[in-house]
Amino acid sequence: TLSEKDGHSSTQSSHRLLAFSDSLISIIATVMILPIAHTKIQQDQELQKSLQQLLATKISVYLVTFLIVTVAWAAHIRLFQVIERIDDVLALLNLACMMLITFLPYTFSLMASFPENPLGILLFCGCAIVIGLIQAGIVLYGFSQPYLLIDHIQISENQNYYKYQILKVILRVPVFCFLAGIFAFIFFPLAYILLALVIFYPYLSQTLKWCCNKALGQQEEHNETMLLYTYHPKEPLSKERVEAFSDGVYAIVATLLILDICEDNVPEPSEVKERFNNSLIEALHDFGPEYLAYFGSFVTVGLLWFVHHSLFLYITKTTRFMGLLNTFSLAFIGGLPLAYQLTHEFEEKSHNELEAIQISCVIIFFAGIFQMAIWVTALFNERETLHPYVRYRGKEHAFMFAKLSIYPCVSLSTFFLTCILSEFSTPIFHLMEIIVPFAFLALRILVRIALALLKLVFCPSKPIHNSVE
Amino acid sequence: TLSEKDGHSSTQSSHRLLAFSDSLISIIATVMILPIAHTKIQQDQELQKSLQQLLATKISVYLVTFLIVTVAWAAHIRLFQVIERIDDVLALLNLACMMLITFLPYTFSLMASFPENPLGILLFCGCAIVIGLIQAGIVLYGFSQPYLLIDHIQISENQNYYKYQILKVILRVPVFCFLAGIFAFIFFPLAYILLALVIFYPYLSQTLKWCCNKALGQQEEHNETMLLYTYHPKEPLSKERVEAFSDGVYAIVATLLILDICEDNVPEPSEVKERFNNSLIEALHDFGPEYLAYFGSFVTVGLLWFVHHSLFLYITKTTRFMGLLNTFSLAFIGGLPLAYQLTHEFEEKSHNELEAIQISCVIIFFAGIFQMAIWVTALFNERETLHPYVRYRGKEHAFMFAKLSIYPCVSLSTFFLTCILSEFSTPIFHLMEIIVPFAFLALRILVRIALALLKLVFCPSKPIHNSVE
Repeated sequence: TLSEKDGHSSTQSSHRLLAFSDSLISIIATVMILPIAHTKIQQDQELQKSLQQLLATKISVYLVTFLIVTVAWAAHIRLFQVIERIDDVLALLNLACMMLITFLPYTFSLMASFPENPLGILLFCGCAIVIGLIQAGIVLYGFSQPYLLIDHIQISENQNYYKYQILKVILRVPVFCFLAGIFAFIFFPLAYILLALVIFYPYLSQTLKWCCNKALGQQEEHNETMLLYTYHPKEPLSKERVEAFSDGVYAIVATLLILDICEDNVPEPSEVKERFNNSLIEALHDFGPEYLAYFGSFVTVGLLWFVHHSLFLYITKTTRFMGLLNTFSLAFIGGLPLAYQLTHEFEEKSHNELEAIQISCVIIFFAGIFQMAIWVTALFNERETLHPYVRYRGKEHAFMFAKLSIYPCVSLSTFFLTCILSEFSTPIFHLMEIIVPFAFLALRILVRIALALLKLVFCPSKPIHNSVE
Repeated sequence: TLSEKDGHSSTQSSHRLLAFSDSLISIIATVMILPIAHTKIQQDQELQKSLQQLLATKISVYLVTFLIVTVAWAAHIRLFQVIERIDDVLALLNLACMMLITFLPYTFSLMASFPENPLGILLFCGCAIVIGLIQAGIVLYGFSQPYLLIDHIQISENQNYYKYQILKVILRVPVFCFLAGIFAFIFFPLAYILLALVIFYPYLSQTLKWCCNKALGQQEEHNETMLLYTYHPKEPLSKERVEAFSDGVYAIVATLLILDICEDNVPEPSEVKERFNNSLIEALHDFGPEYLAYFGSFVTVGLLWFVHHSLFLYITKTTRFMGLLNTFSLAFIGGLPLAYQLTHEFEEKSHNELEAIQISCVIIFFAGIFQMAIWVTALFNERETLHPYVRYRGKEHAFMFAKLSIYPCVSLSTFFLTCILSEFSTPIFHLMEIIVPFAFLALRILVRIALALLKLVFCPSKPIHNSVE
């Protein structure tokens, strides 16, 4: 019929819609670090004390917001792994969904500021319920126009089974949230527990199932096509979207740094006249450490992106568990603007300065170590998830390992240096950050030398055997 | 040889590097609106006066920064249209280039604050020279490893001709900047003229060439493969990257809005206790207009993205001129956070409020009209640039026209309404913004009715003839 043909003509590939959603969600998840980074810390206080205050509320708000937003993002991926093509109606529904997702951080800030007031929970639950209903609407609309679905559901005979399976998973969230909203009036700690359950339920049920299987000695059954919407750790996660989300986080973190410089470090013309005898160079000289901090931090963010990029080049398939590790790595990357603020806020050679450097090292270390963890996870199932070059005994294997270990090693050794040397200062730290790229450039040579040395040490007497290999 | 084989094995598709660069550059171009949006405007001043101050410096800083950054972005596109594959060295060189591009807005802020001090110009020129040299380095490296280049240069016999042609274009910028740096000491107005020349030189030379050709009556010769690096208005511009850049701008604008809400509109617990008798709802009631402004602005940004998305679905090839129009549209989109700040800053029913609404209308109008201009440009050469569906007489033509004209029409009529009705207020404006999506949903039906009416009016007597068609 004409109307169906019409519908087909306006069907669109969902690629750009998803890229837009990814950058929107990644930015929302990351910018929540700004209110923390802009918290003024009094110079006379010890950093440790004010940090404890910060840690207690704001950093946990940031981390939980990051987690909640990434959970919403994972649900979004899952949804659009089933619905492959879009039309105008779906695009508009998706925008409505995005609007509510960007509002989640605000409702969560309210919950953190007024933990005993039910209003924050109610608002949060309200948003979550509406998001869930919109997603259910998207699923219903998608199944009513089957040409929008992925091929293997489109040709499948039990479309209805898939439909109810997916709706069941999606509608679980609104139901839990509705209950939480009711309990917010009666006994609010229970409401928080219910909300935590929404996030962790799939993980808990999966862990329980895994434990049961191990205890009973049963073998798990694998069925590629059935893995969608199962919350299984090996459930495939669109690699393209994981990359797009990560790119968004790295890009916004790199930008937040320069934004601070542009807002704070352009001197006022009147001040330059009065304090510095009209000499702009002298006025800017005061900001020297800021510039160094900026370049140092940008280099760190840029290279961590570079490592991520190199890693995902050789990953052929991403699973949910790898996505989770990636989220943790990104949450620490999002903390880098805080590290940047801290390292140039304190006087030189103070106790605070050393602690600020240590915090930066911890953040960089965890960002790097979770990247390494992604690789290790991939190695466990290397036939499915890795390119032959970087598999164990592959020719890029050692090189990839070296690339991934640079940042954890450098940050760990810097951390211990700050414990030993009291002379260590922020400018040295930032200079170290700027020198790291040269380590990357020289890496290929260094790895070759190291491998040659290893060969020489462990099998020095079999040169002929070696060359035959 | 082994080394060459090694080189090949680490060769990578440049897709993700470019996506990352696009989001970085788009965010940098857009966040420069923040210092303007955060300028405090005294309530007692007339908006017009303080706006004149704003206009004089900050808005022009924003617009010029946006222009400069997009020029750097266009140069980046051109570069990576020649170099199609990357390796680690190119990725690192590109990151260095990105670092300097993100520093450009700061040097420009210095130039704007201290126009008579040569330091700002020197810093800017320094950055531009280093960026130019890095790009030249990328070109030299790319031509030294020809498998990185696009195929038609790779197999071409006069690779050297291409190489020198491209280097000539790239090195023009550092040379101009070097001269500008020297003149900054001697006679600085000349330095500014030289810098303006760097940006406008290709446009000027193209316009002159076009005029000459028209005057002499010569026909322009077209040669698809030679159009790279010519600055011809029909030079192809990677459609993928134009979309990625636009997505970045829309996403960051939508996010800046919620960031303001999260930073400013979470009440202090102590304040709630003292002023509102511990009633959170009353405290939040004060922020009512902000929420409405947020949802209204998000809907506007989202739908403008939706229109952009629908438009680019049907565009098959983007040219430099369309890219330029797109840049103008995005520059106005970037101004939306300012509109958002203005519309909820003033008391109700004040003269200021009406002017704030008018400014918002102007921003939305120009953002929409430049989108329309992209389509009109595409229509002029529809065989090459448009999908058959939306060409003149195509079955989606009228529908696309209606989609593109919604925002210009709505904003224009709102502007005139504010001139006539003194009762018009911000809440009404924001409610109007929230209602617009329903216009989009009903659009298909409205267009059909309109077309039927038009047919009825212009050819009412030929129903049989019509049905034969």
